[in-house]
Amino acid sequence: MTFKTTKTHAVHGGTLRYLTHDSTATGTPMTLSVYMPPGEGPFPVLIWLSGLTCTEDNFTTKAGAYSAAAEHGVIIVAPDTSPRGEGVADDPAYDLGQGAGFYVDATQEPWVPHFRMETYVTGELIALIDAEFPTTGTRSISGHSMGGHGALTLALRHPDLFRSVSAFAPIASPTRCAWGEKAFTAYLGDNRSLWAGHDAALLIESGAARGRFDEILIDQGDADSFLTDQLKPELLQAAADAVGQGLTIRMQPGYDHSYFFMASFMADHVAFHAARLKD
Amino acid sequence: MTFKTTKTHAVHGGTLRYLTHDSTATGTPMTLSVYMPPGEGPFPVLIWLSGLTCTEDNFTTKAGAYSAAAEHGVIIVAPDTSPRGEGVADDPAYDLGQGAGFYVDATQEPWVPHFRMETYVTGELIALIDAEFPTTGTRSISGHSMGGHGALTLALRHPDLFRSVSAFAPIASPTRCAWGEKAFTAYLGDNRSLWAGHDAALLIESGAARGRFDEILIDQGDADSFLTDQLKPELLQAAADAVGQGLTIRMQPGYDHSYFFMASFMADHVAFHAARLKD
Repeated sequence: MTFKTTKTHAVHGGTLRYLTHDSTATGTPMTLSVYMPPGEGPFPVLIWLSGLTCTEDNFTTKAGAYSAAAEHGVIIVAPDTSPRGEGVADDPAYDLGQGAGFYVDATQEPWVPHFRMETYVTGELIALIDAEFPTTGTRSISGHSMGGHGALTLALRHPDLFRSVSAFAPIASPTRCAWGEKAFTAYLGDNRSLWAGHDAALLIESGAARGRFDEILIDQGDADSFLTDQLKPELLQAAADAVGQGLTIRMQPGYDHSYFFMASFMADHVAFHAARLKD
Repeated sequence: MTFKTTKTHAVHGGTLRYLTHDSTATGTPMTLSVYMPPGEGPFPVLIWLSGLTCTEDNFTTKAGAYSAAAEHGVIIVAPDTSPRGEGVADDPAYDLGQGAGFYVDATQEPWVPHFRMETYVTGELIALIDAEFPTTGTRSISGHSMGGHGALTLALRHPDLFRSVSAFAPIASPTRCAWGEKAFTAYLGDNRSLWAGHDAALLIESGAARGRFDEILIDQGDADSFLTDQLKPELLQAAADAVGQGLTIRMQPGYDHSYFFMASFMADHVAFHAARLKD
């Protein structure tokens, strides 16, 4: 097996594994968790992309997703948010470098050659999961904050790979917020025309993946301290309205940016994807 | 308010607060979390006692208890496992001192005067919660490992305070395992005759609280690495059988000692207590 299992836990009748493998996409070891629901399968897959500073462990321990995954018979795969290690470029800030891969393939030094999270997720990871676990070969994608941006942009850029996409508090338009401008300048360079292809709102507006996803589900807390300056879900809504993309943004009153927020609505997202994965 | 709120999160329609207060029982600041379900109340209370090395945060972020608490209308209170701080005695080992209070009132130096977790939980904490939150004045208690020992022994020693008691992987008989022998020697001294009153199996065997709890619910993973040497649930079963105490020990195949195990069965425990709190 390509994956080396570092920890195994029984959870909600299924099996959770923490895995590591040597990634050809990033040229580094990569870590992830894989939850297998009870039964023999084959099962469809939900890819979860985490936010800034996270490893695979945050979602795995805090999101409370596995009860719903067991109920619906869905595998959940949660990779780390970037390559890591001593030989990998980094930045002292929490929002750049290790833990902040932004799900793009970097074209700029010092981030090449390791920061290739788009290729890692959409190429290597998906193929390895299908090769080594009993999957149906169908999958959906979701994520939080930077990982919500990742889920939306990877689904819109690679619609053949995913049946459905949802997000919690995504960075809706990284070309129009400080987190995104900083990361895209570093990873993709100063030419802003190259950024648009990695901006969920602009991708929707461009008609990318038009008609491929019946609905996109977004949950957003209205007490999220990043809502106004960084997340800007209204830009997603405007883009969807402009091109007739089905989009449901649920503004959740009183909820913040934490895993407590995500855990509160996680079962809805698993059910949303499960319904589309079983069509 | 006696409690100072350090963090607040909306969770599953209710409100989670991290609190701190100056405890008269321990003579130190103490931290805890309190989950209020949606609605006005009054609500009954479930006290949760955590295991070795934990603070209030482990249960709060990992147990996945708040969905069931919201559904059943139960407040959940999760205190820290010991007094802490620079002026508080400690030990380099993980199983003694700070993070390892064992829910007893220490009689031995250097643990007096701060290590008074029995008085803290059964006296001060319960009274403060009833004074400052909309409770019905009724409560139950549960916990994990060292906290399972705490839940069982505090309920058996103070049956008037609790409607029901359950535990995950409790230290069933601390007088007959290394964790308990070490902690009781340190906190209670060498006279083993004084230990029996803090040993759940011996308390049941002695007839303590006979007839006060219709059933005691225990979940135990059969892949728990501490099962044979430290936890010994068979001693609880033998004691219950000897005196006719209702006891259900569910040996859960493949489950270990982690929060993944607890999260898998937490909803059952919340429902178990909710049914008895609403009688």
